[in-house]
This record gives sequence, C-alpha cells and structure tokens, in this order.
Amino acid sequence: MGISQKELGVRLGMEEGTASARMNHYEKGRHTPDYLTLKRIAAELNVPVAYFFCESEIMAELMVKLESMDDEEIKAILTQLESN
Amino acid sequence: MGISQKELGVRLGMEEGTASARMNHYEKGRHTPDYLTLKRIAAELNVPVAYFFCESEIMAELMVKLESMDDEEIKAILTQLESN
Repeated sequence: MGISQKELGVRLGMEEGTASARMNHYEKGRHTPDYLTLKRIAAELNVPVAYFFCESEIMAELMVKLESMDDEEIKAILTQLESN
Repeated sequence: MGISQKELGVRLGMEEGTASARMNHYEKGRHTPDYLTLKRIAAELNVPVAYFFCESEIMAELMVKLESMDDEEIKAILTQLESN
C-alpha cells in the first residue's frame, strides 16, 4: 500500500512520536481500533472497513472490487451464486 | 437471527446481569468489541467477522454466501468480475 504505519497514523491525526507504536499495536492485534478510527484508516487506504476483517487475501481483494459496485450489481452476483 | 442480545452475551460468557447492556453498547456503536470478542460473536451467529462491517444489507448477505466458498471459487468470481 506504499505508506508507512507512522505516516498513516500521522494522517489520522496521531502525534508523530506515538503514531508508529499505536499503528503497530493495531496491526499486531494488541489493540482493536474503534469503529471511527477503522473508518478513517479504511478511507486513507481506499478500502472498505470489512477489508480488514477478511480471513483470506483473495477475499480482501474481492471486497475492494465489490466496494466499487452498486447494490444492484451486488444483488446480481448474489442471485447468480445462489442459482449455481 | 432469533436470539436476544442478552442470550448472545451470556453465550459469550458475559454475566447475566450485564450481558444485555454490554451487547447493546456494541450494537449502538458506543463500544467496539475487541477482535476476539467479534470472532466469538460471529461464530455464535454463524457469520464472518467482516459481515459486521459491511456497509449495506446486500453486501452482508453476499459475505455470508462467500464465507461458504473456498479460495478457488472466490478467485473465479474475482476473475469474472475483472473481465467484465
């Protein structure tokens, strides 16, 4: 994704001195960011919040693709999958 | 989903007396459960953790369907969507 944990943390308004450590806690799962922080991180990285909670890389990739689609297109995929 | 907030909280090991209030805080977004609690709630409700963070009902429905699929099937969907 091309930006450092520290840079991401600073963009979210964290103090320079603690940004890296705080973001590292999140990444390692020691702390779970609250929902608003998750939304801001997701917006900075241009991914949906659900992306962070996908259990596999391929699902996370699909989530990013689905994020660009509207509800009608999502519904069409669901209908197709349910008819298989 | 057919079970009360209190019942869900108790199944997760919360005290009967505080289960309902605690689960209500989560639902209203006042508190964000830590990841392990999210995973246990998801397992109880038989949905993926990402389900809780989907921005629309239809996306959440699709997440449940995708959860039953393996990586190869997910990859096939992504490939098809990228070829559109």
